[in-house]
Amino acid sequence: VRIAVLGTGTVGRTLAARLAGLGHEAHVGTRDVEASLAGTQESWDGSGTFAQWHANNPDIALGAFAEASAGAEVVFNATAGEGSLDALGAAGDLDGVVIADVSNPLDNSQGFPPLLSVCNDDSLAERIQRAHPGAKVVKTLNTVTAAIMVRPADVGGGDHTMFVAGDDEDAKATVRSLLEAFGWRHVVDLGGIRGARAMEMYLPMWLQLMGARGTPMFNVKVVS
Amino acid sequence: VRIAVLGTGTVGRTLAARLAGLGHEAHVGTRDVEASLAGTQESWDGSGTFAQWHANNPDIALGAFAEASAGAEVVFNATAGEGSLDALGAAGDLDGVVIADVSNPLDNSQGFPPLLSVCNDDSLAERIQRAHPGAKVVKTLNTVTAAIMVRPADVGGGDHTMFVAGDDEDAKATVRSLLEAFGWRHVVDLGGIRGARAMEMYLPMWLQLMGARGTPMFNVKVVS
Repeated sequence: VRIAVLGTGTVGRTLAARLAGLGHEAHVGTRDVEASLAGTQESWDGSGTFAQWHANNPDIALGAFAEASAGAEVVFNATAGEGSLDALGAAGDLDGVVIADVSNPLDNSQGFPPLLSVCNDDSLAERIQRAHPGAKVVKTLNTVTAAIMVRPADVGGGDHTMFVAGDDEDAKATVRSLLEAFGWRHVVDLGGIRGARAMEMYLPMWLQLMGARGTPMFNVKVVS
Repeated sequence: VRIAVLGTGTVGRTLAARLAGLGHEAHVGTRDVEASLAGTQESWDGSGTFAQWHANNPDIALGAFAEASAGAEVVFNATAGEGSLDALGAAGDLDGVVIADVSNPLDNSQGFPPLLSVCNDDSLAERIQRAHPGAKVVKTLNTVTAAIMVRPADVGGGDHTMFVAGDDEDAKATVRSLLEAFGWRHVVDLGGIRGARAMEMYLPMWLQLMGARGTPMFNVKVVS
């Protein structure tokens, strides 16, 4: 399946590499290919600059947002929350496309921990859905760090919970099958896209837990 | 230990009964004792009207907010979020007192699910702390339904997580010992009272999960 991953940060790299490893035709999309390849910032995950990562992953195509998204069945939004609407706006016609939104609407303007730039009576995922009414937005994976997104078994033997929310049942089934391929065994459906509010408002808890534990390698399991 | 529980709803009743059962001198505080005893609304937990519950728990003292709180070492805020600041304002001098804040700032004015009346850059617990700078506010227990608050072993064998947040370490230790007496084995300290934002912003997730599961008898466990 052709899958676009928008965003060249740690999350985008991790998703693209895992999807390619699973045999999908992965395309990474970015605003400006030249600028991304010229970037000197190194990822905290050890994958180096984007140019280094790109050189080490020669089977993953790289293009502008619209190039990467063209013909994709699923588009992962792995851009920073503040840039997500612009990035998807530049991705071309997304009608009928599944947008797997893994972003968080973090507002870093006031230091750490970040606030949310939207919450309570709206969410970034809802904004994306409103901006692309013909697309099928599914919120998922924003509640864990990149490494756990694609290899949940790396913590707690994979015995913890992922969430999905979205208005389109087929799109949720598509995303769910990708999650299962990643190794997710417990996926809870939070209903329509409004459920994304809950997933995004969980981020302050995630940030506090990361601070308390000193590592992002954790998740929560729903217990009953 | 003398402990006040402010609030006559399901949460207040559950906390007071459990604290009394553990041998504490439990006092339930309410705005207007006569009005509370005259109330005809029955709790969804089967404990009936407040007058019926009171008759069935004769060892638990009942008084106005200030009466119940006088001399209490710990005051549980189990009032509805919208009434919490008023209730604690009526509780008299709370300097040196541990306020265990179990409330949620729910805004029910726009139907179900409720929004939060405060979040992101502030929290109800922080507002309570600012209103009572001499008190020691500890946020806890707001992330589970009443029955689980006091008997965590009733779901998943108790193998799930509770949180505390507050600026005073001794107060957190006091609350933690009460939590342990309730049966909590995994209590994560989220740091200062600002951590209450994370605990209150978790509520939308809790509400979605309750909807998805059809029962409030669940909690989350932090897995690593």
